[in-house]
Amino acid sequence: MPEQSPLDLAEGDPFGPHNLPYGVFSTADEPGRRRVGVRIGGHVLDAGAAAHALGSPYAALLAQPSLNALLAAGRTAWRDVRRALTAWVTVPAHRPDIEPLLHPLGSVTLHLPFEVADYVDFYASEHHATNVGRIFRPDGDALTPNWKHLPIGYHGRAGTVVVSGTDVVRPAGQRKAPTDPAPVFGPSVKLDIEAEVGFVVGTPSTLGTPVPLGDFREHVFGLTLLNDWSARDIQAWEYVPLGPFLGKSFTTSVSAWVTPLEALDAARVDPPARDAGLLPYLDDSAEEEPGGFDLRITVRINGEVVSEPPFSTMYWTAAQQLAHMTVNGASLRTGDLYGSGTVSGPEVHQRGSLLELTWNGRDPLELPTGKRTFLEDGDEVTLTAWAPGPDGTQVALGEVSGRIVAAPGA
Amino acid sequence: MPEQSPLDLAEGDPFGPHNLPYGVFSTADEPGRRRVGVRIGGHVLDAGAAAHALGSPYAALLAQPSLNALLAAGRTAWRDVRRALTAWVTVPAHRPDIEPLLHPLGSVTLHLPFEVADYVDFYASEHHATNVGRIFRPDGDALTPNWKHLPIGYHGRAGTVVVSGTDVVRPAGQRKAPTDPAPVFGPSVKLDIEAEVGFVVGTPSTLGTPVPLGDFREHVFGLTLLNDWSARDIQAWEYVPLGPFLGKSFTTSVSAWVTPLEALDAARVDPPARDAGLLPYLDDSAEEEPGGFDLRITVRINGEVVSEPPFSTMYWTAAQQLAHMTVNGASLRTGDLYGSGTVSGPEVHQRGSLLELTWNGRDPLELPTGKRTFLEDGDEVTLTAWAPGPDGTQVALGEVSGRIVAAPGA
Repeated sequence: MPEQSPLDLAEGDPFGPHNLPYGVFSTADEPGRRRVGVRIGGHVLDAGAAAHALGSPYAALLAQPSLNALLAAGRTAWRDVRRALTAWVTVPAHRPDIEPLLHPLGSVTLHLPFEVADYVDFYASEHHATNVGRIFRPDGDALTPNWKHLPIGYHGRAGTVVVSGTDVVRPAGQRKAPTDPAPVFGPSVKLDIEAEVGFVVGTPSTLGTPVPLGDFREHVFGLTLLNDWSARDIQAWEYVPLGPFLGKSFTTSVSAWVTPLEALDAARVDPPARDAGLLPYLDDSAEEEPGGFDLRITVRINGEVVSEPPFSTMYWTAAQQLAHMTVNGASLRTGDLYGSGTVSGPEVHQRGSLLELTWNGRDPLELPTGKRTFLEDGDEVTLTAWAPGPDGTQVALGEVSGRIVAAPGA
Repeated sequence: MPEQSPLDLAEGDPFGPHNLPYGVFSTADEPGRRRVGVRIGGHVLDAGAAAHALGSPYAALLAQPSLNALLAAGRTAWRDVRRALTAWVTVPAHRPDIEPLLHPLGSVTLHLPFEVADYVDFYASEHHATNVGRIFRPDGDALTPNWKHLPIGYHGRAGTVVVSGTDVVRPAGQRKAPTDPAPVFGPSVKLDIEAEVGFVVGTPSTLGTPVPLGDFREHVFGLTLLNDWSARDIQAWEYVPLGPFLGKSFTTSVSAWVTPLEALDAARVDPPARDAGLLPYLDDSAEEEPGGFDLRITVRINGEVVSEPPFSTMYWTAAQQLAHMTVNGASLRTGDLYGSGTVSGPEVHQRGSLLELTWNGRDPLELPTGKRTFLEDGDEVTLTAWAPGPDGTQVALGEVSGRIVAAPGA
């Protein structure tokens, strides 16, 4: 009996040829050589080598140490490369060329798939923003007056975006409880997660020229899962009046795999009904393509499911966020990354942060590894997600995981 | 009579051999070839070509299209390159090699001198923060409770940092006066400046490892002037609760010249007395080198002096900002840029923004070009500065200027 090909996938494999996310990998025998890889089932295809072997015109785009060249190539190239890849992994005649270029996932090292240009983080879940408002401003309105008029966002630190699997060093910093006479310094005691989706910009735009809603797919290549690790105690003391800084900037984790938007065509859904009128540049009621994505996220701590946030419930869409981010003329660069903001659904078990899940520590989670209000050293958090694919399939996103290690000297 | 050499500078030229700031230029006959240049008097020395002509080991660092390779080379290289440059422009025997490599300033195009990695903006002037607090929160304390305990900062948009001389497109966006029933959209009507100093990071640091106060000069290569253009109306509506975003992200201008810290040794001064105890990581009372810089800034609108902010009055120093920015383990990259925050002194004519100079429009400036509350299309703003140099000299910083052009479609 002939050995089974890595291309003979189990029925319904969520990393089948309908998915084909992009990443960057290296192998043990050439650890310094980063290459673009495409995930198929449990293997990684060396995409540049495949393009070369098959005489593809995309060899130069794919034989790169990051996805940035492909990202910069624009939508027509993205479509054509995806078509070529689909053929390479599905047409039997290509198997002799392709099979030797497949590496088992467990044998490779995955790297940050693209060089992050600017990183922006939004705050687009009404359920999340309402929960946070209730926790921190119990006597005021849960949502600030601007919340339903614009997707609130801020810039984060691009240089500390890391790939899934990278340890997260517990940050130290200042915190001050309202009853403390002065701030104290030490490792954060309220280290939290934020389950988000990150959008990756490919095609740049021109300084001074806004990107309209309808151009979303001209500029955005794909998405990842994103964990916006947050130190709530540091953040609470620092954030008035200029917003989060050290409470967020220590680490942001993204998937090793960028899922192209084209793999998610069957997952597009209408966003929730908006209950405030939108200014024209944000009004997506006449857009052809639904602005939402039906991504079902699962959050695990030490293997235990603690939440299942539904991305379809996000009030503001990724296209609206892009239009807003550029409406002042700010330009996009290849590699810009923007996070959706914490994804929380209407139900308790759909909340995307421990802040909400434990109501700022009031209601600890009971896990097999012990009670948790916030994260302890050694805890491992993993986000996974899937979306409906074509013909009843599922499209899995690349997971994002990270383990908390103690602050230096702690 | 022999023609005078460009190296025979007038007595006291503030761009003399005691200064030697670094930039990036191209010439009209080779517009695509960006090269590292060093300013001497009214000329730019092609530094890579000079290094090559004189057989210097630094030719590879200097024959580059940006300063990033030099920035990454570290403090010993910075010192050695500066020593070499000083010899090249002062030792008469080098003149035959050097003079042909000098380009008159007016004949070259100056470019953004380095690739900006992350951009952070601080809020470190007590006078500025107090003025802003009084204007926006007249019934509350002018300073937030955290202000004297930590240098407040936030991340800005690195991709829209531009070089001096680049036009500034007036941003459009949402604004809402308290009396408006709903936000309106249009070009900002409160376009402002912020006169700042920008610090440029050379040597990177390791994720998870804070940079202590005393390591400031190991990491920071030099400084520029910086104009953090701000749309006050957009900012006022958007900034609660996550801080400034579109009100700032449209453009940030920096000098074409980066002044190395070594040129400013005579300008180091003690910061103002601190009236709140500092946590150890920010306590600079035992540092060998004074943390402040005696930079005297001048702000001109259409050629008219409107303000003279003294950088020596800044409450928080650049070394404290660096220590704070990394105390949570956030890493530095070559090309990181951080702004001091608006520089305002205690006097009215020392305020670094129109918001303060006109008290949010209440007290217009009377300029020869007309009354001004905020900036009008066509206005040109120029920041210049000088600092005491060795032996009674002055060290000029590279100016930063920008002209306002109308929003698209306006």
